[in-house]
Amino acid sequence: MSKTKELAEKLSTLEIGNMYENDFYWTWDKTDDELSAIFTVADALRDLRERNKSTKIFDSGLGISIFRDNSTRTRFSFASACNLLGLEVQDLDEKKSQIAHGETVRETANMVSFMADVIGIRDDMFIGEGHKYQKTFMDAVTEGNEHGVLEQKPTLVNLQCDVDHPTQCMADMAHVINYFGGVENLKGKKVAMTWAYSPSYGKPLSVPQGVAALFTRFGMDVVLAHPEGYDIMPEVEEVAKKNAEANGGSFTKVNSMEEAFKDADIVYPKSWAPFKAMEKRTELYRKGDKEGIDKLEQELLENNAKFKDWTCSEEMMSLTKDGKALYLHCLPADITGLSCEEGEVDNSVFDRYIDPLYKQASYKPYVIAAMIFLAKVKDPVSALKALDEADEPRLSFKK
Amino acid sequence: MSKTKELAEKLSTLEIGNMYENDFYWTWDKTDDELSAIFTVADALRDLRERNKSTKIFDSGLGISIFRDNSTRTRFSFASACNLLGLEVQDLDEKKSQIAHGETVRETANMVSFMADVIGIRDDMFIGEGHKYQKTFMDAVTEGNEHGVLEQKPTLVNLQCDVDHPTQCMADMAHVINYFGGVENLKGKKVAMTWAYSPSYGKPLSVPQGVAALFTRFGMDVVLAHPEGYDIMPEVEEVAKKNAEANGGSFTKVNSMEEAFKDADIVYPKSWAPFKAMEKRTELYRKGDKEGIDKLEQELLENNAKFKDWTCSEEMMSLTKDGKALYLHCLPADITGLSCEEGEVDNSVFDRYIDPLYKQASYKPYVIAAMIFLAKVKDPVSALKALDEADEPRLSFKK
Amino acid sequence: MSKTKELAEKLSTLEIGNMYENDFYWTWDKTDDELSAIFTVADALRDLRERNKSTKIFDSGLGISIFRDNSTRTRFSFASACNLLGLEVQDLDEKKSQIAHGETVRETANMVSFMADVIGIRDDMFIGEGHKYQKTFMDAVTEGNEHGVLEQKPTLVNLQCDVDHPTQCMADMAHVINYFGGVENLKGKKVAMTWAYSPSYGKPLSVPQGVAALFTRFGMDVVLAHPEGYDIMPEVEEVAKKNAEANGGSFTKVNSMEEAFKDADIVYPKSWAPFKAMEKRTELYRKGDKEGIDKLEQELLENNAKFKDWTCSEEMMSLTKDGKALYLHCLPADITGLSCEEGEVDNSVFDRYIDPLYKQASYKPYVIAAMIFLAKVKDPVSALKALDEADEPRLSFKK
Repeated sequence: MSKTKELAEKLSTLEIGNMYENDFYWTWDKTDDELSAIFTVADALRDLRERNKSTKIFDSGLGISIFRDNSTRTRFSFASACNLLGLEVQDLDEKKSQIAHGETVRETANMVSFMADVIGIRDDMFIGEGHKYQKTFMDAVTEGNEHGVLEQKPTLVNLQCDVDHPTQCMADMAHVINYFGGVENLKGKKVAMTWAYSPSYGKPLSVPQGVAALFTRFGMDVVLAHPEGYDIMPEVEEVAKKNAEANGGSFTKVNSMEEAFKDADIVYPKSWAPFKAMEKRTELYRKGDKEGIDKLEQELLENNAKFKDWTCSEEMMSLTKDGKALYLHCLPADITGLSCEEGEVDNSVFDRYIDPLYKQASYKPYVIAAMIFLAKVKDPVSALKALDEADEPRLSFKK
Repeated sequence: MSKTKELAEKLSTLEIGNMYENDFYWTWDKTDDELSAIFTVADALRDLRERNKSTKIFDSGLGISIFRDNSTRTRFSFASACNLLGLEVQDLDEKKSQIAHGETVRETANMVSFMADVIGIRDDMFIGEGHKYQKTFMDAVTEGNEHGVLEQKPTLVNLQCDVDHPTQCMADMAHVINYFGGVENLKGKKVAMTWAYSPSYGKPLSVPQGVAALFTRFGMDVVLAHPEGYDIMPEVEEVAKKNAEANGGSFTKVNSMEEAFKDADIVYPKSWAPFKAMEKRTELYRKGDKEGIDKLEQELLENNAKFKDWTCSEEMMSLTKDGKALYLHCLPADITGLSCEEGEVDNSVFDRYIDPLYKQASYKPYVIAAMIFLAKVKDPVSALKALDEADEPRLSFKK
Repeated sequence: MSKTKELAEKLSTLEIGNMYENDFYWTWDKTDDELSAIFTVADALRDLRERNKSTKIFDSGLGISIFRDNSTRTRFSFASACNLLGLEVQDLDEKKSQIAHGETVRETANMVSFMADVIGIRDDMFIGEGHKYQKTFMDAVTEGNEHGVLEQKPTLVNLQCDVDHPTQCMADMAHVINYFGGVENLKGKKVAMTWAYSPSYGKPLSVPQGVAALFTRFGMDVVLAHPEGYDIMPEVEEVAKKNAEANGGSFTKVNSMEEAFKDADIVYPKSWAPFKAMEKRTELYRKGDKEGIDKLEQELLENNAKFKDWTCSEEMMSLTKDGKALYLHCLPADITGLSCEEGEVDNSVFDRYIDPLYKQASYKPYVIAAMIFLAKVKDPVSALKALDEADEPRLSFKK
């Protein structure tokens, strides 16, 4: 039996009826079965592609991407996922549109969606804004579909908001599951999600938040470490606590990178901005207070600089389980001596983990494709089997 | 019999031999049968898509878009139409090209068209320029095709020039036909195409011109209303007059919004710039007279401000037939109290018409696709029937 | 027998085993058989397309383009080639990415390539840099593929580096072969690859270098002419010399445009910057010496201006074989009296050669497609035959 067929069998045991025609905002909106379905379909699509089998389920249709922040990885992952399924990506570049012209989100949402099957949005810059934008957008197209304006309701793939970065964290987890040889081996593993120093300012909180909320669902002991003041959103901490309780793991907070790294199986050292500072920044932007923003930036950079020892050095790594914890990063990292003078990670550490880091990233296109697949295909079990059996190559004449 | 088959039957009664391998500049270049064919094919393509049937007639090929002005709706409509038929959009972004480098339009036209089946151009900024650019471009590719440089002659879809905005006005009309239950119900309907106040400056004239020229072909009473001095191009007024005469309707001009709205069945209140001012502006740009341009803008804004009462308020709407005229706008509108302090339309009016406005916009992708289809398919009647009968889903495993 | 079948037969006589899964940097990396295979497959793909036959070998997959310099022709040629084979182009716009953010080339290369079958790179601005960038990029994805990060190794198509511009020069040569009725008629033809005056500064050397290295492989007498100081890279001159020796032609250098044009069968007058000045410029950019760069530019422009008589005038053309040499240019040209006051070529000369110039350009999409085809298809002979026999139209219902 092919791997895809095995995965289809596994999928058939999961309760996933609610995924059809649904959206993906945050991992904690989803049941365990639903997350498992995404990993399963992602693996199946990868297997099919590796065996040169077509996974093109769309004959036409658009995948709309909206990047309100720069992106390489997520942009190409989204494009790859859409292309893999047969959708053409059309980027809504707000600079080339008439949006500045007084157009509302509700209007834009409908105007770009007449033939859109998927909407991918990255809006991670302002606390309290990114998710709201996605919600407003999707409410508009849902209404548009109900009122007969849109023939189909496009599905949302959250490509990073101010709260969660689900395609990243799901790819991270797919990598972890694969690295440790299965979900069943994750119970009791210690994960250090820690802040790390970076010379730049205002990095989003969505990755540490997403990791705290997702990794606690697998019975792992997740330790969130950061200098005082660098808190993440309290609502997400609550999610992490509940998940840990429900799944037999733990969620603890410490103010020491060493403590977090001690005997850790997995480390995820990454810079982010303090939640409260980000709230303040959002407020300053709303007021258009340029001076205030510059002052805040200055303060934050000065504050960051107090914690330059929060870095994933060789010494720090030696504290981990056998000195060999799995090092994770969403990339790009601030690499000491390579991309900056002092940063999140030593070059020698980073370099040793290049292959696993790139493999970690390689899951993202498949995770996104799986999210789309499960939202668009009514009977994904049969669909996977049919794709497996079909004699449709991805590349004809490959051999 | 399926709706598509009925539409194919209707199409077979129309004289459309000239549409094959032809271009679309202005609606008044086309016969009644040709316009009817576009509505018919647009409806059929919509019906096929709604029934999840593939309408992909191209296996490869490019749709080139050239936007010399910002665009959301038209950009996505063009992308949607191309994708629906199997063409990939490639945008000619003049900033990323070597055009500034001294390249002629003739050269660019050929260089981007080696595998282009469609060219969509928006060039609406300067009176006397937009159409000229499209014509020069298409003459070049026609010659290129005749001289063996291009294997195929791409077809032009005018995505808005200084004279007409045919994809917009055809979509508007498709909406009107659908709203009133058929072309046969339009005779004698009163249409108020009126100027409205906007705080911005220099909006194109192509929409009021296109509406005046197109709506007069359906036996309707078209009233063009604007403050003194806000005339449209006299050539297009002539077209409107002749069309009205030939089709048993009327074309009149008034200088009062109230008079136009009185008992109207359809209202289309929208800002535009005075034709003569736009001619002057083109001249100033040609000379590079920055000071003159700024002065002209100032004058025009001041002049606009004298006519703030030209707005589609609730009072104004109450003058229309039963107070319930169909409100049209090409979007985005300047909405009083939403996108600006004082604009083209009251928020309460606009909001009440959101669904019909969005439906109006939803016709554009299909109108564009129909224009392409009729220019590229030799026997569109048989083609529609074949698409209808084929067992090719747009989205596999949808159900 | 169809033309494609004949070409497939010809292809079967060539030794091309090394092309599969290989890259295209420079023409002199390739054997005569390999170059011949590219011309052959390009002709076959053109024949298939002209007969409305599908050449889509990819069902999904991305073609990544990276343009570190502006481009119209090459951008659209690459897009056309990818589309012809079924790949979707995804442009890596460094401004929209996080590359400035400290990301390495190795990382970017892997991050964009998870589903990339082809990478097209233009990086021609700095001597000593362009090729290095392409090499670093491809080494990274090759390693990524070997280490299990990338399921497939994308193939490189060099869209112009500092050393060669192979897609241009191969298209030029395809045009020359076609113009003279076959490779066998090229022996002994005189080619004048000459510098010409342009009011702009710092044009790449890759075209004269590529022409010198490629045209000498066909037994032609290639004369490289430029004012003193405008040398090309000595390494490439060496290649040209060796090629001439091996193929029974010649490679000579002169400092007179007249001498080069005298009795020439082919002329390629085109501006470029002196090699040594470009080396100096690279150095200045590396140091960030803005003043030095401005000064160098000034010097070079002044120096250029001494050689305004190096222009392809009617007088100059009259020196060529029967006054009717084939005029080549990679476009866009600096045309005296059209795009500039004094430039590379008289308007009357340029205008007389418009059709052949555009035909010259028309080979580029097919040359690129052939490079991809030969790198991705294991048995290209059978593949061409299968495409020829299949009943898959490019445009359905064309007739």
